[in-house]
Amino acid sequence: MAGTVRGGLSRRGLISSVGAGAALAGGLTAAFVGDAASSGNASAVDDLSYPFEGAHQAGIVTPAQDRLHFAAFDLDPRATGDDLIALLRDWTDAARRLCAGSGAGPVGPLSGSYDAPPDDTGEAIGLPPSGLTITFGFGPSLFTDADGVDRFGLAARQPDALRPLPHFPADKLNHLASDGDLCIQACAQDPQVAVHAIRNLTRIAMGRAAIRWSQLGFGRTSSTAAAHVTPRNLFGFKDGTMSLRAEETPAIDEHVWVRPGEAKASWLVGGSYLVARKIHMIVETWDRSSLREQERIIGRTKAEGAPLSGGKEFDQPDFALPGRGGQPLVDPTSHVALAHPTHNSGVRMLRRGYNFVDGNDALGRLLAGLFFIAFVTDPRTHYIPLQTKLSQQDLLSEYLQHIGSGLFAVPPGVGPGEFVGQALFA
Amino acid sequence: MAGTVRGGLSRRGLISSVGAGAALAGGLTAAFVGDAASSGNASAVDDLSYPFEGAHQAGIVTPAQDRLHFAAFDLDPRATGDDLIALLRDWTDAARRLCAGSGAGPVGPLSGSYDAPPDDTGEAIGLPPSGLTITFGFGPSLFTDADGVDRFGLAARQPDALRPLPHFPADKLNHLASDGDLCIQACAQDPQVAVHAIRNLTRIAMGRAAIRWSQLGFGRTSSTAAAHVTPRNLFGFKDGTMSLRAEETPAIDEHVWVRPGEAKASWLVGGSYLVARKIHMIVETWDRSSLREQERIIGRTKAEGAPLSGGKEFDQPDFALPGRGGQPLVDPTSHVALAHPTHNSGVRMLRRGYNFVDGNDALGRLLAGLFFIAFVTDPRTHYIPLQTKLSQQDLLSEYLQHIGSGLFAVPPGVGPGEFVGQALFA
Repeated sequence: MAGTVRGGLSRRGLISSVGAGAALAGGLTAAFVGDAASSGNASAVDDLSYPFEGAHQAGIVTPAQDRLHFAAFDLDPRATGDDLIALLRDWTDAARRLCAGSGAGPVGPLSGSYDAPPDDTGEAIGLPPSGLTITFGFGPSLFTDADGVDRFGLAARQPDALRPLPHFPADKLNHLASDGDLCIQACAQDPQVAVHAIRNLTRIAMGRAAIRWSQLGFGRTSSTAAAHVTPRNLFGFKDGTMSLRAEETPAIDEHVWVRPGEAKASWLVGGSYLVARKIHMIVETWDRSSLREQERIIGRTKAEGAPLSGGKEFDQPDFALPGRGGQPLVDPTSHVALAHPTHNSGVRMLRRGYNFVDGNDALGRLLAGLFFIAFVTDPRTHYIPLQTKLSQQDLLSEYLQHIGSGLFAVPPGVGPGEFVGQALFA
Repeated sequence: MAGTVRGGLSRRGLISSVGAGAALAGGLTAAFVGDAASSGNASAVDDLSYPFEGAHQAGIVTPAQDRLHFAAFDLDPRATGDDLIALLRDWTDAARRLCAGSGAGPVGPLSGSYDAPPDDTGEAIGLPPSGLTITFGFGPSLFTDADGVDRFGLAARQPDALRPLPHFPADKLNHLASDGDLCIQACAQDPQVAVHAIRNLTRIAMGRAAIRWSQLGFGRTSSTAAAHVTPRNLFGFKDGTMSLRAEETPAIDEHVWVRPGEAKASWLVGGSYLVARKIHMIVETWDRSSLREQERIIGRTKAEGAPLSGGKEFDQPDFALPGRGGQPLVDPTSHVALAHPTHNSGVRMLRRGYNFVDGNDALGRLLAGLFFIAFVTDPRTHYIPLQTKLSQQDLLSEYLQHIGSGLFAVPPGVGPGEFVGQALFA
């Protein structure tokens, strides 16, 4: 690997080799990398590595890692189409290396030359790959900017679905922390590895693109959790019970990947759309509501996550089943009732969000919530109708504020020698 | 355990029992808690639990966990001395429960009554204790406020060392994100567990105290790292090589714990002082400097962390050893030269800081840095002189801005039936 440098220390210390040629589709298959320093099984989860190349970008159906660093970028006003292509090529090269546990640049964090800045910033030296995935997306403004200008000659290839999300009732968006020409989702078991990836990709972009907004997230109990343990959001409820699972291949094909059809979106076939919503959860108010009220609003029990109509977490709710007084046990305006696929034309999402805490406000209230990420085949069918309904009717809305938003087209995966989004420029 | 509630689900799911009676000193000894859902050794690190009670508070010499949530609180202007005592009593009770893997309140996250808010917010249901420690501190303003008022009748017991830190050259402090009447340091392997602790302790304080400022941090490679692996800061260098280690008992006694002597500080004997400094690291500028320059500024190699005079990381620097041209190999104004105990009257610190990233500024630069925490026996000998020197001479200062600051007295540990800081009110 390129990571071996002066002094014989490799980029992440003790990683011997990574099977980078495997190019496994969609990151579903993971390679375990030996680590001579590890003491037993405890390090196995951190030593997980996913190949960057594949039919789909990794970080979509890849089992969700514990930590997130997400960044949206705006291109420099002076950047040309050639600059954009060069940036995507440089980012792809760096992402290949980073996901394999190497440095961001060809030399690594301990530059061969003492008299030049190292081509990697070094804070991940000695850390295992930690299941890092790096997923790139293109925002609507890459094709048509706010003034309708076709900045890079790409407007003719802008998919109809890739338009700024509409204003939803009760949106309180910070527009400086929304949208963006490009986005990168970096996920890893270790936040330092995710931060290292975003930081180095930001550095590579210098002079061509700069971060517009960014978000750190956490929220998985632990990579050691048994499969199918639904994580909890900061309202204390399991969140994502109905989310698509990676192994539901036919459903993933139907609800996540972009299929052939629209000519100008041909470059996006095999890709997806990433919907990002930063949702401030007003935890102080929520915490003052009774358990009964909390469960009524969600439509599920807090302990098990079971529908209030009975059964276990993964049993389907019975929306007709009456309780005392003849009212349905599951309130029709509960979150589960409004969001359930049976009430939304069968639509399902692959959710991949994270909890966040961004400190506190001047009154000492936590700036906490959910950084919602969903991957869908088409936001016009799979997100906008549902969010329109939720923002109008959901009992939960009283406790939520949508403060950030973004929609990005996520190109398909990258083959050997290719750069991400290459088909867009063909 | 109190955590067993409706439906037979315990506070953190599958934890069978925790040996809470052990009251082991300083959290140096850890109990492993069985987790029926775990698959092999991989979960052992998360199942680590430390008793809250002991001769010293846990979270000081406890091996540093991966994640931090730190919060400083101000008491409500209307709060009385009795309110303060009641708060400390309530916080202590909750901390005992939380560190044992139970809920914040006596009932747990799934309240016995449907018609009352649960006495725990629930986002840690099912999570193991994750090595949680909760450490409480008292700021100077608890004793004498900015106007010199003795708010709670405690001024006569304010230690001479517990005064606001002086202004250091180049300080750019945000005073709204500095100081505070009280502080809580919550550390855990899982950020959701640390956040859960701060959130519930904040909720318990409602009407009596509110968060003034707070900070999330990360920065340990992994709980699986071998002992004595020095973590790296966001300049890519190992940080804390010279920090005191828990097993250096005589040195810990000398440099960390408050010893008997000053009558008005008798309540603090066996405690310590926590120095918190939020240090913004200007990573974009640093990343443009050559490896030679970076190593000269630190005084150590980037790869190994060895002194530039030669040897390995833990070898002592030879500050006199000349290189080419007769100049010392270790620059006298390098960080290691200025900070080394031999140049500071033998003073050593127990460092326990974390890296942080708080998003980005309007120019796309990461708001990244080090949340420095050190525990010392006396800030007048163990922090102020060193920081005065560093802020004037350290080559590293060009790349740093101190933007937040706090000094807190950390009372000794709590015995059965006691509350934290109880001796202060005796």
